[in-house]
Amino acid sequence: RKRILITGGAGFVGSHLVDRLMLDGHEVSVADNFFTGRKRNVEQWVGHENFELINHDIVNPLYIEVDEVYHLASPASPPHYMYNPVKTIKTNTMGTINMLGLGKRVGAKVLIASTSEVYGDPEVHPQPESYWGHVNPIGPRACYDEGKRVAEALGYAYAKQENVDVRVARIFNTYGPRMHMNDGRVVSNFILQSLQNETITIYGSGKQTRSFQYVSDLVDGLIALMNSNFTEPVNLGNPEEHTIEEFAYLIRDLVGNTNSEVEHLDPMEDDPQKRRPDISRAQKVLKWKPVVPLKDGLQKTIEYFRKELLRSS
Amino acid sequence: RKRILITGGAGFVGSHLVDRLMLDGHEVSVADNFFTGRKRNVEQWVGHENFELINHDIVNPLYIEVDEVYHLASPASPPHYMYNPVKTIKTNTMGTINMLGLGKRVGAKVLIASTSEVYGDPEVHPQPESYWGHVNPIGPRACYDEGKRVAEALGYAYAKQENVDVRVARIFNTYGPRMHMNDGRVVSNFILQSLQNETITIYGSGKQTRSFQYVSDLVDGLIALMNSNFTEPVNLGNPEEHTIEEFAYLIRDLVGNTNSEVEHLDPMEDDPQKRRPDISRAQKVLKWKPVVPLKDGLQKTIEYFRKELLRSS
Ligand SMILES: NC(=O)c1ccc[n+]([C@@H]2O[C@H](COP(=O)([O-])OP(=O)(O)OC[C@H]3O[C@@H](n4cnc5c(N)ncnc54)[C@H](O)[C@@H]3O)[C@@H](O)[C@H]2O)c1
Ligand SMILES: NC(=O)c1ccc[n+]([C@@H]2O[C@H](COP(=O)([O-])OP(=O)(O)OC[C@H]3O[C@@H](n4cnc5c(N)ncnc54)[C@H](O)[C@@H]3O)[C@@H](O)[C@H]2O)c1
Ligand SMILES: O=c1ccn([C@@H]2O[C@H](COP(=O)(O)OP(=O)(O)O)[C@@H](O)[C@H]2O)c(=O)[nH]1
Ligand SMILES: O=c1ccn([C@@H]2O[C@H](COP(=O)(O)OP(=O)(O)O)[C@@H](O)[C@H]2O)c(=O)[nH]1
Ligand SMILES: O=c1ccn([C@@H]2O[C@H](COP(=O)(O)OP(=O)(O)O)[C@@H](O)[C@H]2O)c(=O)[nH]1
Ligand SMILES: O=c1ccn([C@@H]2O[C@H](COP(=O)(O)OP(=O)(O)O)[C@@H](O)[C@H]2O)c(=O)[nH]1
Repeated sequence: RKRILITGGAGFVGSHLVDRLMLDGHEVSVADNFFTGRKRNVEQWVGHENFELINHDIVNPLYIEVDEVYHLASPASPPHYMYNPVKTIKTNTMGTINMLGLGKRVGAKVLIASTSEVYGDPEVHPQPESYWGHVNPIGPRACYDEGKRVAEALGYAYAKQENVDVRVARIFNTYGPRMHMNDGRVVSNFILQSLQNETITIYGSGKQTRSFQYVSDLVDGLIALMNSNFTEPVNLGNPEEHTIEEFAYLIRDLVGNTNSEVEHLDPMEDDPQKRRPDISRAQKVLKWKPVVPLKDGLQKTIEYFRKELLRSS
Repeated sequence: RKRILITGGAGFVGSHLVDRLMLDGHEVSVADNFFTGRKRNVEQWVGHENFELINHDIVNPLYIEVDEVYHLASPASPPHYMYNPVKTIKTNTMGTINMLGLGKRVGAKVLIASTSEVYGDPEVHPQPESYWGHVNPIGPRACYDEGKRVAEALGYAYAKQENVDVRVARIFNTYGPRMHMNDGRVVSNFILQSLQNETITIYGSGKQTRSFQYVSDLVDGLIALMNSNFTEPVNLGNPEEHTIEEFAYLIRDLVGNTNSEVEHLDPMEDDPQKRRPDISRAQKVLKWKPVVPLKDGLQKTIEYFRKELLRSS
């Protein structure tokens, strides 16, 4: 039984991680400023003796005694991280410094939630961890991409210099229940549009690709990585790749709504044109690979959003 | 007459900038923690009514009323920035946040001293400002390269969101008097080795290239950039490119010492293999180009180090 801090634990990924670690019998503390997270995502645990919810902004120091830190606090979708780019960078720099300072003081392992965005708009496909990336340092996505790149660099600087035990997960696109309704990410947008008879909005040609993993697969991978002795970055993602256009029709069909039209809007600036993880490293060192088929995961996600829409109406 | 803050103003580049701005009649404040800077570099101004020297570490907030900030504080040579990678990143993230916060509060222009290292080990040659770079986010140089990349991203985030008037100079290799003796950079190493009859140490094959500008050219460029209305990054460097091996023999000949042998040591990890600035942008928007010939600059630098050696013996 371990004492575990999850920053950003009231968010989409974090709350699923909370569920798993609570069910495993650990003591879990969540630190979240509720920028995109919601108390409702973890309300099933509020009052449980092993659970604690701290309303805390991670750009400020946090003094707490724990064995492990899953450091997930950060805006994650393009509309959210571009909303306040200064805050996005502060969260990923000062917030990460604080968590590594905590790891140094109490000897806790620190897992940093990095992202496939460190590869930018990749010129190598699929992306292995050895790829250095293709990122615009001053573009509209820079606050997030460069913030995460320097968060990784910080992790390894504290590892080398202060012996902090660091893990770096490069998370690829993930979907599932509890995604934020107004997150603006493609899966939530397309599902909500299909459910509400609205036009499905494809940014640009729709020929750009993504590879989506279901959230329970990611949670398995994060825990496996934390428990491993492997300290280099590890890609966590599902290598099944689709164009955004394919997603549009797939989701519309699964929702069972053929009324929604599909429309093409202007492309996003610096939008990565293709993305697929090379997961050989995770398979080898973590014996991990995603197991949830896309259709099953999407069905569960559609069910979640259906209920959310009913609840809010 | 302006009130100007120079962070890192007791260092190599900063102290030359101090000289120029003092001679131009401005009020100059220097904030420096003397990590690599020395009081002696600016002692000619200590006591002058327009000059102030503040012993201050830029990772802590600084409240001061000024019109312009030249933000140069950062370890700059590989041995210095790798000495304490955590501190290098803190200086370039928290230090830059503080200077941009100051710029936001007092409405000062902020010029960020970035570097050609944002291009990493470049796959495009020469490097224009539009090149996104090729940087290892977790290599030994990451603390500096990623720190500077995110410093640029921070600059543009504050510009967009808080209307801070930002300038970004991407400085290429610079040499001249007042370079730190133990800086470990190639020009100071080769000059000192030649002057002291020591073996000249080439890391790797010596076929890697650099393009060196003399410090007075850089100072001209920094001031021109600050005074311009141009807000995008601008390369400041001398496009004359040489292999490191050529530098070894050139410097040895200029020193006039044929006793020093030239030896090849192991290559540095992730050492950029070629580097030359494309300065079309600076020529166009600043009407700037370097004017000091390499040999003249090297002669002055050799004279400086000759005196330094005499002084210290
Ligand atoms: N979901 C994905 O597809 C994906 C892909 C790559 C990486 N990631 C990373 O995984 C992590 C979780 O992402 P998510 O999809 O769950 O997003 P999310 O927005 O649902 O969760 C982020 C959580 O962090 C909290 N937070 C943000 N800034 C904070 C601050 N300054 N202090 C305290 N809490 C703060 C938010 O309130 C939210 O609860 C993020 O670090 C993200 O960058 C996610
Ligand atoms: N010289 C070059 O070839 C070159 C090339 C590219 C970029 N640059 C940039 O130009 C700037 C000046 O470089 P330089 O060559 O004069 O190096 P330098 O080491 O001589 O000067 C850096 C100065 O910053 C000070 N400093 C470092 N950390 C500080 C902190 N936390 N708080 C306050 N002061 C601090 C040092 O004491 C020193 O006086 C740096 O930002 C560097 O990254 C230099
Ligand atoms: O339990 C802790 C220990 C440290 N920190 C913060 O982590 C940061 C980095 O710590 P580090 O030890 O590197 O910094 P130092 O205290 O030496 O400046 C500091 O700003 C601390 O405020 C924290 O939030 N919780
Ligand atoms: O309503 C939407 C939202 C997103 N996208 C596209 O879907 C892809 C994935 O976008 P998302 O914001 O989900 O994540 P990213 O991987 O870009 O961070 C990108 O190419 C977007 O341009 C889209 O076509 N329509
Ligand atoms: O004159 C100033 C104004 C601000 N800051 C610092 O700059 C940082 C960033 O300022 P910002 O306004 O973005 O931050 P906030 O104060 O809103 O957290 C803060 O930590 C301040 O301590 C500073 O050093 N000098
Ligand atoms: O004693 C030395 C110092 C540096 N170098 C090489 O000279 C080049 C420039 O190194 P420096 O540290 O001056 O600056 P950088 O441009 O790498 O930041 C690099 O290829 C180094 O490997 C060398 O051969 N011998």
